[in-house]
Amino acid sequence: MDFLNRVKKIKATLVKKNLKFFKMLNFEFQNSTKIIFGKDTIGKLSTEIPTNSKVLMLYGGGSVKKNGIYEQVKKGLSNFEVIEFGGIPANPEYEVLLKALEIIKTENITYLLAVGGGSVIDGTKFLASAALYEGDSPWDILSKFIRTEKGMPFGTVLTMPATGSEMNSGAVITRAETQEKFGMGGPGLFPQFSILDPQVIQSIPKNQISNGITDAFTHVLEQYMTYPINAFLQDRFAESIMQTLIEVAPMVLENPFYYEAAANYMWSCTMALNGLIQKGVPTDWAVHSIGHELTAKFGIDHARTLAIIAPSHYRYNFETKKKKLAQFAERVFGVHTGTLEEKATAGIDKIEAFFHSVNIPTKLSEYTSEFEGTAERIEARFIERNWLGLGEHKSLTPADVKKIVEMSY
Amino acid sequence: MDFLNRVKKIKATLVKKNLKFFKMLNFEFQNSTKIIFGKDTIGKLSTEIPTNSKVLMLYGGGSVKKNGIYEQVKKGLSNFEVIEFGGIPANPEYEVLLKALEIIKTENITYLLAVGGGSVIDGTKFLASAALYEGDSPWDILSKFIRTEKGMPFGTVLTMPATGSEMNSGAVITRAETQEKFGMGGPGLFPQFSILDPQVIQSIPKNQISNGITDAFTHVLEQYMTYPINAFLQDRFAESIMQTLIEVAPMVLENPFYYEAAANYMWSCTMALNGLIQKGVPTDWAVHSIGHELTAKFGIDHARTLAIIAPSHYRYNFETKKKKLAQFAERVFGVHTGTLEEKATAGIDKIEAFFHSVNIPTKLSEYTSEFEGTAERIEARFIERNWLGLGEHKSLTPADVKKIVEMSY
Repeated sequence: MDFLNRVKKIKATLVKKNLKFFKMLNFEFQNSTKIIFGKDTIGKLSTEIPTNSKVLMLYGGGSVKKNGIYEQVKKGLSNFEVIEFGGIPANPEYEVLLKALEIIKTENITYLLAVGGGSVIDGTKFLASAALYEGDSPWDILSKFIRTEKGMPFGTVLTMPATGSEMNSGAVITRAETQEKFGMGGPGLFPQFSILDPQVIQSIPKNQISNGITDAFTHVLEQYMTYPINAFLQDRFAESIMQTLIEVAPMVLENPFYYEAAANYMWSCTMALNGLIQKGVPTDWAVHSIGHELTAKFGIDHARTLAIIAPSHYRYNFETKKKKLAQFAERVFGVHTGTLEEKATAGIDKIEAFFHSVNIPTKLSEYTSEFEGTAERIEARFIERNWLGLGEHKSLTPADVKKIVEMSY
Repeated sequence: MDFLNRVKKIKATLVKKNLKFFKMLNFEFQNSTKIIFGKDTIGKLSTEIPTNSKVLMLYGGGSVKKNGIYEQVKKGLSNFEVIEFGGIPANPEYEVLLKALEIIKTENITYLLAVGGGSVIDGTKFLASAALYEGDSPWDILSKFIRTEKGMPFGTVLTMPATGSEMNSGAVITRAETQEKFGMGGPGLFPQFSILDPQVIQSIPKNQISNGITDAFTHVLEQYMTYPINAFLQDRFAESIMQTLIEVAPMVLENPFYYEAAANYMWSCTMALNGLIQKGVPTDWAVHSIGHELTAKFGIDHARTLAIIAPSHYRYNFETKKKKLAQFAERVFGVHTGTLEEKATAGIDKIEAFFHSVNIPTKLSEYTSEFEGTAERIEARFIERNWLGLGEHKSLTPADVKKIVEMSY
């Protein structure tokens, strides 16, 4: 098979190349988003949006109308002309977003305001890009991976900590008809401001808090659980975020009115994916790539697919990741005894136990009884898309992915 | 004494108020500087400065001409019209900067490029502000604490990690004739870009590397060594920076050609004062306020004045800081035995020992034999300036400062 031989060759070269240098990689970092963080800060949006803006306010399924956030936002918008667009679903769908794009154009909208979690914010990023896109079809932005240098300006009011989208320039958009997820991004997609009031956590259902913790924790893992590269500060920052999530998770789940825990949870989720900890280090993201397929097929919540895949991924790639796994076990969970391999194994067990502690099952069979054949199906999809290697070494083949998914049953 | 009674009253109110709430403080965070980090990155400045800019290139005492940085910068600037201004001294002086300001105006400069350490960058920030200042005299910016909303755009090539000025919007300017230091800042003073090539460390004299490590370490202490406020992530980030500095300090001093150590040292210095770790927490900065007086009087290097004052400051304010001191001793230096007080005491000893380990003496008498009377003189200066309380509780009186300085002899 020509394709697999090609993968094999690339794999060999990259492993060799990457393993050769263990020094911090060159990087560029810039993040222009203004964070407004704290108790009773939602009203501040009134002074962040330029005067005379015509605002499209975007939100999701309507929970904002029940928890009081809607009223706070509307009050902050009282000096602006505002049109509302609700109903953006989890895994924001292209077809739904096209309707909002129509409104932006016919109503001459000049500013977007996302009021929601990662899905609403990601959807708004797509709209910010599409609103100024001059090509034939906004579909190109996704299918041709067009980078957004300049988008329509937008701000966010975060109602659910998890994805970090409130302080980064990336988005994931779903196309329902093909069961596909597309990533997009570019420097034009940083929110101008994001308001983070930890009190919003009080009205989030517990299973969604569990999802948020799992999502943020896995974001850190994807940027950390690779191989040591002597980036001491980035490692410690990543460990700091994971330690904090572990510390506050039981508090937040026990009592979402405990402000201190909510504040630490919220800020940790943002710092987990605002670009900082990925700078100068290799990143993995295989867990996300494989997890997306489980959401597409079974509709399993994004965060839960990560919890299903991550432990098997680390077990399957034990040799290349064991140094980092051992460091993680030592520093984050205080595992100080045993060989490197024993510590590394303990690290994986601790990750799995942490997910269980926030009520997240880590086996596919706990979510669906129709799991047989999933590994083969995902392998086929990866081959079909001519996909060339996952993981920090870009070395995992579709056959590797198949085995990882099998281990996750 | 009316003034001291006033201080006493404010002290009582503030201590009461601050101790009442132990939750993360509300904050705003925005940092627009683009960091270009890594090996052989200086040439990238050619694409960061807007085309057709007329550039004033600012540097210090000329070391850039000996270490090859000057040539790299000039090559990057080859497509621009450039005027040079060298000779900005450590503790950038107002009178010297006025000469550069004259050039900016007569030559219609449109872009500033700082090539140097904290002093050159701080001086450039003053110029960025003064160049667009419309008031009567640029002196007002300093004496009237005028915040800079918009400055002339500028970038930096960092030649000495220490102050963090390359990724923040603050500056300290000295007026020689009055022996005073003035702080200034504002959102218009973030560098547009800063180039951080860790290889620059190879040509820095060892005593200046020691200064840089001490400066950055104390920056973290000023934002951390206060009282616990349940800002778990900020605490851990601060501890991460200090742990990394402690880890790399001996490596950098031993061999500045060890790239991995240099890279971690450089990035730690930047992260120590780019705004991130101070968000949501109380900060102190008394060590800097007192230390500045020692530089003004004796010309002792800024970083060394911090090492002189910090241990005494923490010993004098032991009661209000002991919880954080103990946490520091445990997490940063692994002191796990003893009472809270014993751990806290060990924490101060460890700080002092760390300064000694990088060849920084921590007693004033090790720098000057004319130390007698210094405490009284500094007390008098603080009273004379009608100064109203230092430290995280704004509670330290000039009499307290006098005692701290006495303890530092």
